[in-house]
Amino acid sequence: MSVTDTAPSPLVVTAPPERFFGYYPGTVAVVTAAHGGDRNVMSAGWHAALSAEPPLYGVAFGRERYTYGLVRASNAFAVHFLPFERADAIAGAGSLSRHDGVDKFEHLGLATSTGRVLDVPILHDAYLAYECLVDAVHTTGDHDFVVGSVVAVHHRPDAFDERRLQDGARVPGVVYYGRSTFEALGSGARGEFTPERYRERR
Amino acid sequence: MSVTDTAPSPLVVTAPPERFFGYYPGTVAVVTAAHGGDRNVMSAGWHAALSAEPPLYGVAFGRERYTYGLVRASNAFAVHFLPFERADAIAGAGSLSRHDGVDKFEHLGLATSTGRVLDVPILHDAYLAYECLVDAVHTTGDHDFVVGSVVAVHHRPDAFDERRLQDGARVPGVVYYGRSTFEALGSGARGEFTPERYRERR
Repeated sequence: MSVTDTAPSPLVVTAPPERFFGYYPGTVAVVTAAHGGDRNVMSAGWHAALSAEPPLYGVAFGRERYTYGLVRASNAFAVHFLPFERADAIAGAGSLSRHDGVDKFEHLGLATSTGRVLDVPILHDAYLAYECLVDAVHTTGDHDFVVGSVVAVHHRPDAFDERRLQDGARVPGVVYYGRSTFEALGSGARGEFTPERYRERR
Repeated sequence: MSVTDTAPSPLVVTAPPERFFGYYPGTVAVVTAAHGGDRNVMSAGWHAALSAEPPLYGVAFGRERYTYGLVRASNAFAVHFLPFERADAIAGAGSLSRHDGVDKFEHLGLATSTGRVLDVPILHDAYLAYECLVDAVHTTGDHDFVVGSVVAVHHRPDAFDERRLQDGARVPGVVYYGRSTFEALGSGARGEFTPERYRERR
């Protein structure tokens, strides 16, 4: 059928996959939740917008994550995007665990306010934050995929242009490559933030 | 409760959101499917890995998309990531429509081979491709979120380092900002590929 199907593929194939790789580089979401006087923050590499009207945003949570317990108990969470200058906090939110008793907000210097609509911590360092009410939870293999209804959007005005497109020249976003390696959008500047860095600082 | 909750938030909040924005910049997946002698390719900005073991990958499809009909009919699709040098094809796959009768593969110079496990077109220009068997479909607002079981992984060896992390220095990935603007990872080089570009070339 294809005009090009006769050429051999230059790609190496593994089937079944010996290892599932390649889903990075990608942006990292920083997710917060609170319940009954407790709160937490985590980073999430697996996340996506799902619908524009109504606005829906999805995050894949490891079921063992402390934050996920707060999400299920409160039925709410907030999704944030932080600029490259806070890549250290994005990495730290993924390396430290509330299960070890640490207050990650304090430890990482993350100032917060309470959400406008929901009782969720909103990070002041974010250039974008969504307040999300849990709309559905789908078990997907070793994670739960949580669909959130976006009930409020917070943004840092200077991080967006007049069309509300993210202005990477002024406020560079960040992508994660895996293995503690982060890169600034716009310049390609890199930073490595290993888990040891955060554990030593405690 | 918080040590920092007393400071006012520097963020502007809209609730309910007047417009759902900010989900870009992000990587763009290029999705293919085939059924009954027909095939198509589209770009998808809303996608995420969902599980490592078993490997699952999810894509949000507009229900009106031609490719989505092929996905539902065949129960299979392939997810690809292309380097910045093919940002033109990523943009074109999103701007052109099979509903208008165009063979986007031919039009955009996308050579393919058939998948190892599934009858899906695999793009030779990809540095990574997943063959996906449809595992679940969730209606999420104005899109359907399709969970695919990854049954084969194709990769371009020089695009990954010895730990199988994507090597952006050798094969730069691409992020999309919205409004036809693409950026090369690693350098911040930009390209704008407007829909008119593709429609004129037809």
